[in-house]
Amino acid sequence: MASPTTTHPPKGLEGVVATTSRICFIDGDRGVLAYRGIDIHELARRSNFEETCYLSWFGKLPTHRELHQLRDQLAEERKLDASIIALLRAAPRHALPMDVLRTAVSALSFYDPQEKNNERTANIDKAIRLTSQIAMIVATYDRIRKGLQLVEPDRSRSHAANFLLMLNGRSPSVTAERALDIALILHADHELNASTFAARVTAATLSDMHSAITSAIGALKGPLHGGANEAVFHVLQAIDASGADPVGYVKEMLAQKKKIPGFGHRVYHTEDPRATHLRAMSRELGDSSGQGKWFEISHKIEEFLKAEKKLNANVDFYSASTYHTLGIDVDLFTPVFAVSRISGWTAHVIEQLDDNRLIRPRADYLGPKYPAPYIPIDQR
Amino acid sequence: MASPTTTHPPKGLEGVVATTSRICFIDGDRGVLAYRGIDIHELARRSNFEETCYLSWFGKLPTHRELHQLRDQLAEERKLDASIIALLRAAPRHALPMDVLRTAVSALSFYDPQEKNNERTANIDKAIRLTSQIAMIVATYDRIRKGLQLVEPDRSRSHAANFLLMLNGRSPSVTAERALDIALILHADHELNASTFAARVTAATLSDMHSAITSAIGALKGPLHGGANEAVFHVLQAIDASGADPVGYVKEMLAQKKKIPGFGHRVYHTEDPRATHLRAMSRELGDSSGQGKWFEISHKIEEFLKAEKKLNANVDFYSASTYHTLGIDVDLFTPVFAVSRISGWTAHVIEQLDDNRLIRPRADYLGPKYPAPYIPIDQR
Repeated sequence: MASPTTTHPPKGLEGVVATTSRICFIDGDRGVLAYRGIDIHELARRSNFEETCYLSWFGKLPTHRELHQLRDQLAEERKLDASIIALLRAAPRHALPMDVLRTAVSALSFYDPQEKNNERTANIDKAIRLTSQIAMIVATYDRIRKGLQLVEPDRSRSHAANFLLMLNGRSPSVTAERALDIALILHADHELNASTFAARVTAATLSDMHSAITSAIGALKGPLHGGANEAVFHVLQAIDASGADPVGYVKEMLAQKKKIPGFGHRVYHTEDPRATHLRAMSRELGDSSGQGKWFEISHKIEEFLKAEKKLNANVDFYSASTYHTLGIDVDLFTPVFAVSRISGWTAHVIEQLDDNRLIRPRADYLGPKYPAPYIPIDQR
Repeated sequence: MASPTTTHPPKGLEGVVATTSRICFIDGDRGVLAYRGIDIHELARRSNFEETCYLSWFGKLPTHRELHQLRDQLAEERKLDASIIALLRAAPRHALPMDVLRTAVSALSFYDPQEKNNERTANIDKAIRLTSQIAMIVATYDRIRKGLQLVEPDRSRSHAANFLLMLNGRSPSVTAERALDIALILHADHELNASTFAARVTAATLSDMHSAITSAIGALKGPLHGGANEAVFHVLQAIDASGADPVGYVKEMLAQKKKIPGFGHRVYHTEDPRATHLRAMSRELGDSSGQGKWFEISHKIEEFLKAEKKLNANVDFYSASTYHTLGIDVDLFTPVFAVSRISGWTAHVIEQLDDNRLIRPRADYLGPKYPAPYIPIDQR
């Protein structure tokens, strides 16, 4: 390539700093994840999803009054335009939930009261609105595809409890509500993961919030990203259905050179700090619901891979058994990831626009040498 | 940031090589653009959009038979599911065409016969299908929003002629068909522009073609990318409506520190090679249609900015007057960009998947120092 380029980094921009950010701190060597400097373990133990959203968007923990106000706004936005519900009803039954979510979020732009406003304050309003709406779309579409009656949102409940209510049609237990709340905290942000990066690349053309989030949902769908927790559960199901010994099953997968989903991470070289809490929740939910087998299978796999292969469980591994025990279908695992990650995506879009520059890298051209001849069609 | 990183490149990944590619060669210093090594000037003079699509997807110029077959496939796919037309009809009249296009392309995934197949051959079929469908969506939505009767596709015509027929409801002149055909060739690909990069970031999670193209459309919408030709026409309109002297108007914009849309490019340091042909087409269409004023205003602006400011017109500048003269509304300029760029986007997605690695860069963390305390809410 004749134009000047400064760097030829490794594939996938691994290790390349694409931007500065004040949102998420990761130390992959020490297994540290922090939002706005606050350790994820502190947040998982003591915070809640709404507070985590505030922290992501505003860069500080809210006062009582600020948290109250945000909860009210999130609850207020628990409504979907009738056209969006019609769109969900019109989707064919075989449509993938992530495709439906991506389409519905794209369509939300038609009804956004601030559609043409790309200013910071408008984008914070959109972040709040999208956080409410994405949860509603996921729960509503699941009811529709199962032929179940839609459940009205309950504006007095937490984000996690309202989602489980609208999804399952019954009040969640305190344990279930807290488990989902923690899962939402843990998945809220993860620096420049692929979906967040897709959102920032899109936003950096000065497109709009809905375009950026639509891009993110499309990227999250992939099995190398959000789709991984689905793959984990398919392994657990296969073990359960066949009655196989979990360790034997995984050994066989390894012998066949198959990758075990839910293990290893490009950034963490130690335990994924999110796995710690998801493991505990998986165990607790299993115990309290009488569905302990999913945790047990998972735990045996983890013990074996850690001891024998030095492989660490990542965020996806125990979210599979946790979500299943919460009554979430396997093909909703990735949509539920989006229900949480919307908080981080929107925070990153807002940050990108605070000090924007078009994200436009170069390619190293390896094709036919220029100038290649244009051979007329009769001579080809 | 404690994790090892190799590079801290400039903002926006400027000059950073994000991938290798065999599709598009750009030499910004010499003003060279080539697809698969063939100079854009050769293609603009001697090729056509369908042949350019073949070149993008298959890496070589087609034989008679291969071109014939591709034309047949593109024509065969000139159909939209009734649900997609219903979705276009359901969009509120104020919805932005790019938002509608993004949503409709996302929804196309529901009806794609190969939705769950992410293999190379399936993705080439999807590229062909999407190329036909995007043109139809843009034309069909424009008719719907204007309350006009839909025009049936004509499978015997070229891609360009069929689009103009479906959009305007009448057979285009030979000059108009060729003008759009050349515009489609010129816009077909441009290496790792922001929308193509968004498509590759999305595809690299092993998500699917429709997700990747939906991301690309969202990115193209931005005024720093595809949206720029709309901004050019708004300037031309303002000059025409006020009767101002074009040079005086632009001088006033510069005095107010306003950027003149359609000039300068991150990659080209000389004339954008695409501008050469768009200038000629703008002039020719103006002459043949009796709407010469748009070319004249444009040309005066270009002469002045080149002489006084050493600014070069880019691809967007003369596409504005060209598209307007073709009967394309200003808010369809960016959708028409997508009608062409779909060929490049899909070629890049296919190339990405041929040798994939997740695109996941890092951020340089500048936020509150870790570990920041979690202060209980009562003490905030």
